[in-house]
Amino acid sequence: MRLARIAHPDGVGHAVLEDGTAHLVADPFTGTAAVREPVRTGRSVPLERARLLAPVEPRTVVGMAHNTGPEDRLLPPQSFLKAPRSVIGPDAAVPLPGGVGRVDGEAELAVVLAESPAGHTEETVHRAVFGWTVANDVTGRALQSADSLWTSAKSRAGFTPLGPWIETGPGPAAMADARVSLTVGGRRLRDASVAGLARSVTEILLHLGGHLPLGPGDVVLTGAPGECGELRPGEVVEAAVAGVGTLANPVVAASPDGSGTSGATPTLTGGRP
Amino acid sequence: MRLARIAHPDGVGHAVLEDGTAHLVADPFTGTAAVREPVRTGRSVPLERARLLAPVEPRTVVGMAHNTGPEDRLLPPQSFLKAPRSVIGPDAAVPLPGGVGRVDGEAELAVVLAESPAGHTEETVHRAVFGWTVANDVTGRALQSADSLWTSAKSRAGFTPLGPWIETGPGPAAMADARVSLTVGGRRLRDASVAGLARSVTEILLHLGGHLPLGPGDVVLTGAPGECGELRPGEVVEAAVAGVGTLANPVVAASPDGSGTSGATPTLTGGRP
Repeated sequence: MRLARIAHPDGVGHAVLEDGTAHLVADPFTGTAAVREPVRTGRSVPLERARLLAPVEPRTVVGMAHNTGPEDRLLPPQSFLKAPRSVIGPDAAVPLPGGVGRVDGEAELAVVLAESPAGHTEETVHRAVFGWTVANDVTGRALQSADSLWTSAKSRAGFTPLGPWIETGPGPAAMADARVSLTVGGRRLRDASVAGLARSVTEILLHLGGHLPLGPGDVVLTGAPGECGELRPGEVVEAAVAGVGTLANPVVAASPDGSGTSGATPTLTGGRP
Repeated sequence: MRLARIAHPDGVGHAVLEDGTAHLVADPFTGTAAVREPVRTGRSVPLERARLLAPVEPRTVVGMAHNTGPEDRLLPPQSFLKAPRSVIGPDAAVPLPGGVGRVDGEAELAVVLAESPAGHTEETVHRAVFGWTVANDVTGRALQSADSLWTSAKSRAGFTPLGPWIETGPGPAAMADARVSLTVGGRRLRDASVAGLARSVTEILLHLGGHLPLGPGDVVLTGAPGECGELRPGEVVEAAVAGVGTLANPVVAASPDGSGTSGATPTLTGGRP
C-alpha cells in the first residue's frame, strides 16, 4: 500500500494511492499504535488534483550518526534529533541560508513507526515498522563542525524533506538490500545499498527502542550509505530508495529571515504520484 | 492568566485556572500563532476533580547548552533538542534507567512560544512569548559524557517534566530576575536568578529564531542558573520559578523495558493547583 498525505481542493488528509486516485483515509497515526489498514472515508481525489505533502507529521525525527559504512561499526551507535518543524514534503523548496558554507543532501531510507520499538527483541522491533519512506537529511557541513550538538546544522527550516509516500508492503528483510541514491542538478552520485550501512534497520531500532520514547508516526533516518552532494540554489535534489520512490525538492536561496523561498521558482517534478 | 492542561472526568483539555476552578478552553496552540485569550467552552471543573498534565504538547523542545553563568558568554550560544515524547506533567514519575550512572535534575525557566521568534528584533522576540512554565531538564551525566550529541542523556522517557501551568502575565522584563530553585528529597539546593544566566531570554530567542523553525506551543528551556541535584528513586524532585510555580515529580526506578513506572508510588504534591 502507498499511503500519502495530500493537499486537495477541500483540505488536507491522508490517502491511499491506487489506480491513479487518492482514496482519502482517517489519520492512522492518532492512537497509541498506528492503524495498519487505514479506514477509507469513501471520498477520493484524482491524482492530478492532489499535491503530495510530507506523508506523516512526526513528533520525533531521529537520525543515526556515523552509520554510513562498515568502519562505523567500530564506534558505538549514536543518534541525533531533527526538529519536526524542519520536515517538508515532495517538491517543497529547501531554503539554503546565506553565509553558512557548504550544505549537503543525504539520501536515506526512513522508517515510519507504527509504535514504539521498545522491548529488546527482533520481533517487537519488526512489529514497530509501519512502512518506509525516503528522507533527505540535509546537513550544513561547516555548521556541523562548529556546533558539536548539530542542532544548527540539521534542523533548519526545510532541512528534512520526506516522501513521496509511505510504502507499507515490504518488511525489514525485503528492504535490507535496497539501493539508495542521490541526484543533484541532474548529476547522479555514487549510489549504495542499505546493506552497506554500518548497522541494519533491526539493529538501529533495537538501539533506539532502548533509550528513546518513540511512537506512531515517528520517523527514523537510517543513515546515508552512498555519496552526499552539495546543494546549490536553482538545482533540484532527488533522493531515491528502490522499492519506495523518489523524493525531489528544488533548492533555493533562503530569504533574509531564514524561513523563505526566494530565489529559483520551485519546479514540480519527482514527487508527483 | 494561568493556563493548564488537565485530565478531568470527561477527558483532557486546556483550562484557565481561576478561583479554585478549571475553566475549559479551546486548544490555543492549533493555528499558526497561539490564541492569547483562549476561548472558553463554558464548561468548568472543580480543581479537586482535575489532574494537571504538562501544560502544552510541544512539537519542539529546545534547550540552551552552557547557559548557566557569566563565564558561558565566552562560548558561542548552542542549543540542543529534547524528544517531545520525553515530556511529562506535574506529579508524573521520572523513571531512572538502570546502569546509566548519575542522573541530575535541572530547574529552569521555560518559555512557551506563541509563534516563531524569527525576525531579528527585540520586539518580534517579545511578541513570540506566550507565557512561562517550569522545566526540569533531567540529564544523565555519564550518558552526556559518552554521547557527544546528548540524545541518550536528555531525551529518555520522562526526562522533561513541564508545568505546573503556563503563567501568561509577565513579559520578559518582569521575569528577568526570577529566582529558580531545585529541591531534591526535601533538600533545597543553592538557588539562583534568571539574571545569572549567561544569555537573557531575549538573547536566547534572537539566537534560536535565526536558525530553528519554531511555532506555537514550542518550549524553550533557558538553562539552569542554580545548582543541579542527583535524582534517586523514592525521592521527589521539585523545580520552582518564582512568579510561575512549583513542578514536583516523584523519581522511580525504571521498569526493565525502560519506559516504566515501577518502584515508589507516585505521590501527589506540588503540582496540584
